[in-house]
Amino acid sequence: MNPEKAYAELVRLSRDETVLSSCVDLLEWDQEIYMPRDGVEHRSDQSALLAGLVHDRGTNPRYGELLSAIEGSDFISDPDSPEAVNVRELRRGYDRDCKIPRRLVQELARATARASKVWAQARKENDFKSFAPWLDKVFALSREEADAVGHNGDRYDALLEDYEPGMTAEKLSALFTRLSADLVPLVDSLRGQEAPPNVLEGNFDLDRQRVFTDSIVSAMGFDFDGGRFDLAQHPFCTMIGPGDVRIGTRYFQNHIGRGIFAGLHEAGHALYEQGLDRAHYGTPMGEAVSLGIHESQSRLWENLVGRSEGFWLHFYPQLQGSFHEAFQDVSLETFRRAVNRVEPHLIRVEADEVTYNLHIIVRFELERALLSGDLAAADVPGAWNEAYQRYLGVTPKDDRSGCLQDIHWADGLIGYFPTYSLGNVFSAQIFSAAEAAIGPLEDAFAEGEFLELRRWLGDNIHRHGMRYRSEALIERVTGNSPDPSALIESLSQRYRSNAGTSAGRA
Amino acid sequence: MNPEKAYAELVRLSRDETVLSSCVDLLEWDQEIYMPRDGVEHRSDQSALLAGLVHDRGTNPRYGELLSAIEGSDFISDPDSPEAVNVRELRRGYDRDCKIPRRLVQELARATARASKVWAQARKENDFKSFAPWLDKVFALSREEADAVGHNGDRYDALLEDYEPGMTAEKLSALFTRLSADLVPLVDSLRGQEAPPNVLEGNFDLDRQRVFTDSIVSAMGFDFDGGRFDLAQHPFCTMIGPGDVRIGTRYFQNHIGRGIFAGLHEAGHALYEQGLDRAHYGTPMGEAVSLGIHESQSRLWENLVGRSEGFWLHFYPQLQGSFHEAFQDVSLETFRRAVNRVEPHLIRVEADEVTYNLHIIVRFELERALLSGDLAAADVPGAWNEAYQRYLGVTPKDDRSGCLQDIHWADGLIGYFPTYSLGNVFSAQIFSAAEAAIGPLEDAFAEGEFLELRRWLGDNIHRHGMRYRSEALIERVTGNSPDPSALIESLSQRYRSNAGTSAGRA
Repeated sequence: MNPEKAYAELVRLSRDETVLSSCVDLLEWDQEIYMPRDGVEHRSDQSALLAGLVHDRGTNPRYGELLSAIEGSDFISDPDSPEAVNVRELRRGYDRDCKIPRRLVQELARATARASKVWAQARKENDFKSFAPWLDKVFALSREEADAVGHNGDRYDALLEDYEPGMTAEKLSALFTRLSADLVPLVDSLRGQEAPPNVLEGNFDLDRQRVFTDSIVSAMGFDFDGGRFDLAQHPFCTMIGPGDVRIGTRYFQNHIGRGIFAGLHEAGHALYEQGLDRAHYGTPMGEAVSLGIHESQSRLWENLVGRSEGFWLHFYPQLQGSFHEAFQDVSLETFRRAVNRVEPHLIRVEADEVTYNLHIIVRFELERALLSGDLAAADVPGAWNEAYQRYLGVTPKDDRSGCLQDIHWADGLIGYFPTYSLGNVFSAQIFSAAEAAIGPLEDAFAEGEFLELRRWLGDNIHRHGMRYRSEALIERVTGNSPDPSALIESLSQRYRSNAGTSAGRA
Repeated sequence: MNPEKAYAELVRLSRDETVLSSCVDLLEWDQEIYMPRDGVEHRSDQSALLAGLVHDRGTNPRYGELLSAIEGSDFISDPDSPEAVNVRELRRGYDRDCKIPRRLVQELARATARASKVWAQARKENDFKSFAPWLDKVFALSREEADAVGHNGDRYDALLEDYEPGMTAEKLSALFTRLSADLVPLVDSLRGQEAPPNVLEGNFDLDRQRVFTDSIVSAMGFDFDGGRFDLAQHPFCTMIGPGDVRIGTRYFQNHIGRGIFAGLHEAGHALYEQGLDRAHYGTPMGEAVSLGIHESQSRLWENLVGRSEGFWLHFYPQLQGSFHEAFQDVSLETFRRAVNRVEPHLIRVEADEVTYNLHIIVRFELERALLSGDLAAADVPGAWNEAYQRYLGVTPKDDRSGCLQDIHWADGLIGYFPTYSLGNVFSAQIFSAAEAAIGPLEDAFAEGEFLELRRWLGDNIHRHGMRYRSEALIERVTGNSPDPSALIESLSQRYRSNAGTSAGRA
């Protein structure tokens, strides 16, 4: 077969599969946002049917024939060309899909559906014991999956590959060791300080929070003609297709920070999706490269932009206008310190940006041990509590606020957690590179000007899709391999100065 | 093949096809309600892909094999059994789908997509000439479709069969002749009367209109756990699946009547869908029988319930509470007369319930003539204006408010219009039968009590799905064949008394 013709057909196959899969994305979006309560049974019939069709297409042997006809030909001699990238990534996905037997796919789907239900009940009743056998079951199946996919001795790598292609447990382990070595003392040094007044708690009209957040994300460059915001139980961002990127988010009457920062976070994800090259939609060149890079975009906007002094120099007067009563007597500096408050506690999703990574490191250690078999599900609560004490200096009073807090493992997401911290590490490296290229950005933020940063991210990250694997992309953009020092430096600088300011003004 | 086994497989095929098709319904719902502007191109890719898959399944030769294995067997000896009904209707649909060549399906899709765009522009610019060739084209293709499907000499029957199985142009023609013979003099007799004060126009808060309409449809029995209301450009109702029936509707700041009655209308459709037998979902026994019967349900609630004195005895005080300023000095009787105002004018979608049927009769006459070739597209404006003068005593000042007002023909919906008036005819017959069975209903309405009516409709209409064709269903429920006299009697009684009241109080 002529490689060019084969490639054209390959792209058509991939586009069709992506379009079909995007219908599942809409079903899921609707389920989170608008589906009436009693529609749930029919929705699972719809999703199962379409997911089956997507899987059939993903394992269509025609992929294998077409890929073989192209691989090794001159047509993809430049490894960074869109053609070569698409062939590389489609081969990876096709091989992976074919290696996992249909029986195992179905068993995983059934087991995680059941485990998620048991987990929800167990969390409610603080009853880890009832969940433990299901946790063992999910990890046993994940071991099977890893063996089916294949690995170089560490099963964890095979699972990680699904979220962060090219990353390994060994590299992660080295990176997290360095990260925790610096983070633990930083957290300790902040522990003794006087906490800033918690001006984020109070009574805040939900609709005004929404309007204020919309105005921020507009300024960031979120395109409302090509996307939308809705209210959801849990914040998320999903791309339905080109011109259609949707965010679900939530506001809290009694806390103004959580909703705003969740909005910035999800808008960071959305800018990435909106910045992908439409011409490549439906092929790897038009897809986000990894979860770690995705999270770097959300974290960059949430933390490095959204907690900066410049950012609030611009937005705080607007916030004061919208919530006059709450903030009329609160200085910008007090507010800024409130959104930069560090306090170790038990719940990951409520953690500040400094301690957050320690929550992740705990989970990474435990899931590696669970997968290798060094840790049994029954021993998770003890191991969890010990690790929390060691890294964060706090011990859960019960499993509900301990090892039962996250749905990920029940859902079969093993190897997913570390991408959150990778995102934090990447975000600081990328932001530092952006400032090196453009110059310091805080003055622009203070003017409400985010265009230059967004353009730079678009040119250097978004538009490349999967052209470079995450490590290669980071090296290309920052000149360094993945490295926690930019994050540590950024946190130290901001939080120690925060502490200094606190002391100076106390 | 064993007929029972064949039937079980047939049901599975039909269910799967329905579930797949319901994914298209969600795509369309989302497109009407929430899809961001720039998502339109991708949405058409999604819809086209799924529609193609649905079509492939609908023409799967396995249907033919399974149906042949069942037909003629003892397994379906009772023609009213669910099995026999499903086999009868699946055969009808399968044969129809197979008879229309794929080329024609695609040509119709392309031509109507293009014709709809040209129509929208032509209407905007009041330029019928630019639309005329496309109207000819759509009718030419519809002739081809009718010939492919097959008919007994009248092509119109073949098209009508898609919306109202079993109905014929000849029967419709007889029915409409009787209807117009009584309607035209009724409209004439009302023409000279003093118009009631138009208290429905003013300035009405949109959100309060929504809340008020929600409270009405809740009282009607619309199940909000199994459905939802959203704002849409054009009112519609769609069933996504069991437990998920959705309405889109619209409110007008300057007119309180249009939104409320559109809400009742769509809720009437929704009660039908919510009243179908879930156990039969995905087969004809779980589907609405025809557009005419569907419309009878919406019209019954909109007109026979929603414009009744009892209904407003209950709801008018609530309306006065919600819109105090507008209605504090308006008596119930004045309000009731305002929602029962008759006035011939040019636009079908704004017509009152009396003149509405004359708008339909005009369209029925013209589309029959267009299909037979007796009328060329170029001559439509003249024929249209002549017919409006003859039936309604009004002449459009331009084609925008004349023959360019509806999208149906551009969209390829030939044979669709008459089901609107069939619905009106059926609604009066059904309501009259309901009162014969239950007793007069206005007292219950005045108490805000609609349960008995809804139950009766559920037992006699909704739960049967496609068990009986529309004519048979009407005969079964009312003891008569489709007959306009119940409608004429209902209208005469209500509107002549309305007139009497007016004269008495003038």
